[in-house]
Amino acid sequence: MTKVLVIYASDYGSTRKMAEAVAEGAVGIPGVEALIRNAEETTAEDMTSSQAIIFGTPVHMGSMDWRVKKLIDTVCSGLWAKDALTGKVGAVFATGGGLGSAGGGAELAMLSLMANLAECGMILVPLPKHTPKYEYGGLHWGPYARTTNLAHEPIGVSEEQLAVAKTHGANVARVAVALAGKLEFQK
Amino acid sequence: MTKVLVIYASDYGSTRKMAEAVAEGAVGIPGVEALIRNAEETTAEDMTSSQAIIFGTPVHMGSMDWRVKKLIDTVCSGLWAKDALTGKVGAVFATGGGLGSAGGGAELAMLSLMANLAECGMILVPLPKHTPKYEYGGLHWGPYARTTNLAHEPIGVSEEQLAVAKTHGANVARVAVALAGKLEFQK
Amino acid sequence: MTKVLVIYASDYGSTRKMAEAVAEGAVGIPGVEALIRNAEETTAEDMTSSQAIIFGTPVHMGSMDWRVKKLIDTVCSGLWAKDALTGKVGAVFATGGGLGSAGGGAELAMLSLMANLAECGMILVPLPKHTPKYEYGGLHWGPYARTTNLAHEPIGVSEEQLAVAKTHGANVARVAVALAGKLEFQK
Amino acid sequence: MTKVLVIYASDYGSTRKMAEAVAEGAVGIPGVEALIRNAEETTAEDMTSSQAIIFGTPVHMGSMDWRVKKLIDTVCSGLWAKDALTGKVGAVFATGGGLGSAGGGAELAMLSLMANLAECGMILVPLPKHTPKYEYGGLHWGPYARTTNLAHEPIGVSEEQLAVAKTHGANVARVAVALAGKLEFQK
Repeated sequence: MTKVLVIYASDYGSTRKMAEAVAEGAVGIPGVEALIRNAEETTAEDMTSSQAIIFGTPVHMGSMDWRVKKLIDTVCSGLWAKDALTGKVGAVFATGGGLGSAGGGAELAMLSLMANLAECGMILVPLPKHTPKYEYGGLHWGPYARTTNLAHEPIGVSEEQLAVAKTHGANVARVAVALAGKLEFQK
Repeated sequence: MTKVLVIYASDYGSTRKMAEAVAEGAVGIPGVEALIRNAEETTAEDMTSSQAIIFGTPVHMGSMDWRVKKLIDTVCSGLWAKDALTGKVGAVFATGGGLGSAGGGAELAMLSLMANLAECGMILVPLPKHTPKYEYGGLHWGPYARTTNLAHEPIGVSEEQLAVAKTHGANVARVAVALAGKLEFQK
Repeated sequence: MTKVLVIYASDYGSTRKMAEAVAEGAVGIPGVEALIRNAEETTAEDMTSSQAIIFGTPVHMGSMDWRVKKLIDTVCSGLWAKDALTGKVGAVFATGGGLGSAGGGAELAMLSLMANLAECGMILVPLPKHTPKYEYGGLHWGPYARTTNLAHEPIGVSEEQLAVAKTHGANVARVAVALAGKLEFQK
Repeated sequence: MTKVLVIYASDYGSTRKMAEAVAEGAVGIPGVEALIRNAEETTAEDMTSSQAIIFGTPVHMGSMDWRVKKLIDTVCSGLWAKDALTGKVGAVFATGGGLGSAGGGAELAMLSLMANLAECGMILVPLPKHTPKYEYGGLHWGPYARTTNLAHEPIGVSEEQLAVAKTHGANVARVAVALAGKLEFQK
């Protein structure tokens, strides 16, 4: 089996729901199993035993949630030092209040997550614009669920946004299956 | 007079309209005059004779328009080499189709514009969230006018988005007036 | 007095040293006092009572230290909600192992710090290239002290890097003094 | 054959040399051929007929060369509209004077290139830190050749930097071979 790990932090459950949709999409690909982990409970072994790792975060002040960052600083950095994740597949997603007209900082937040994946030498899977419902939940770096309305009142995650997350999970799983055991980078 | 220069590139007129609103906001501040310049016509003297420089761009493929970049590479780089813009005030804005739910790459496009301003040693003015109509045309790095609807059909620039641009121009002018002749950075 | 707050997290003391140099530069400007705070001890009142706030961080996996992010998520976000920091002056600096030839992720880490400052509506001060010793400790977004050699062995912070940090502190203080009480952004 | 396209712009030949090293690494993988193209001569057909596309740029004022951007705006955007590059493999590299201690803006420049690749739905290959000579020519987003010394005098591209570029080309080719014909993203 090809294992896809979905790591998230969540304040009110929105990012958790997106994580579940990502995992649902992944396990729809034959030969793929998924594990969903809260950032505060994720272990190094969870990561090293997976072929793909997907990070999701709420956007806070234009960057990732501190609990996701703590996991990266305290666990990923050790795996980076040992080149333990090189050649695995990585991807990201985010949720957020998104005040304004341009994502409220989601892009830089996703790029910071991707920086960790790139530092670990992981192959990155973006989100194609032909993804169904992209207009409701898409950015090229990954799915984004805006969870407030124009008045900045909470409205939760929509079906369309979950659909985007599900497709993303499937795409990542497809890449992980195609690459499994195939890559040996030069050292 | 404190001079504010607004530089833009525009395909269908939306970024031009935003530039005009920015300039309109700037000249509303006592003692301020504004000059609007197409990126392809802007000269080094336009920049060196201004106290504030505001760059606006359509977002293309997640970054700035190539005509704005050409101006930066061919004119700004020479001024950078001579430290000719240090201590001036800078700011940015953008427009774009914005396909998806998170700005369609506007954030990185604005940051690339800001990189040029920062390299030139300019003080940067962001967009406070309490800006009127921020929800229709705001990102913390600057105004953003999404010019298509959910079906990705062109809808032009709205009054609310122009209002955000106008406030941004006024804010930048306020900073330029307050700093005019006051800054002498260590060399 | 104009108050400059310098916030940092530090693993082995390098970022602390840079913070001290930044503060030293700030207090060299007449009428300026500085306060240095560890990110884990910084309070909302520290920020609201300051005219300038400078964030420093070690770079971990291409982004800011999780302790700085925790402060931002738990304290700055509340001040953002109340527009309590609008019009203040902000700036950033970083340290890091910097493995490789291009800063090891320092740029994105600094931009993430700046995202928080921009969200809070703060005026941003970059680092001009004519800063003395820029070649040893400079990036346009702020000072950067690489603290390892080519073999990635720890070598600490150099005098040249501290000099860059000191100039940065002075520049930020100059802007804060020039703007103090002058700005009233439109709401 | 799996075709790898290497696109570059170059002022003094450094980025051209890096492009050649990338291509040399790619063709070292069995079944792979490479095509090197100047950005001003690259056609849509060059891209659609390739399985991997690698963009290289000099860093100018903290972002990509305007000639590379012109290619992206005028050619890639049309291919994006038709989803013509989805599922291909993409990667980036850069060169630059790199004044300062942190890459001189190389990171944001590389991310802007990656934004175009991500918008086109391409799988992204970063640069693992265990790459030989990474310390002389590496950033996690891709190879970076600093082409000036501490005094900012031109010194050209080194053998070590070319070695990093060569490994990058080989890594990208490996991913392209492994994924060729395997990916079918959901539409």
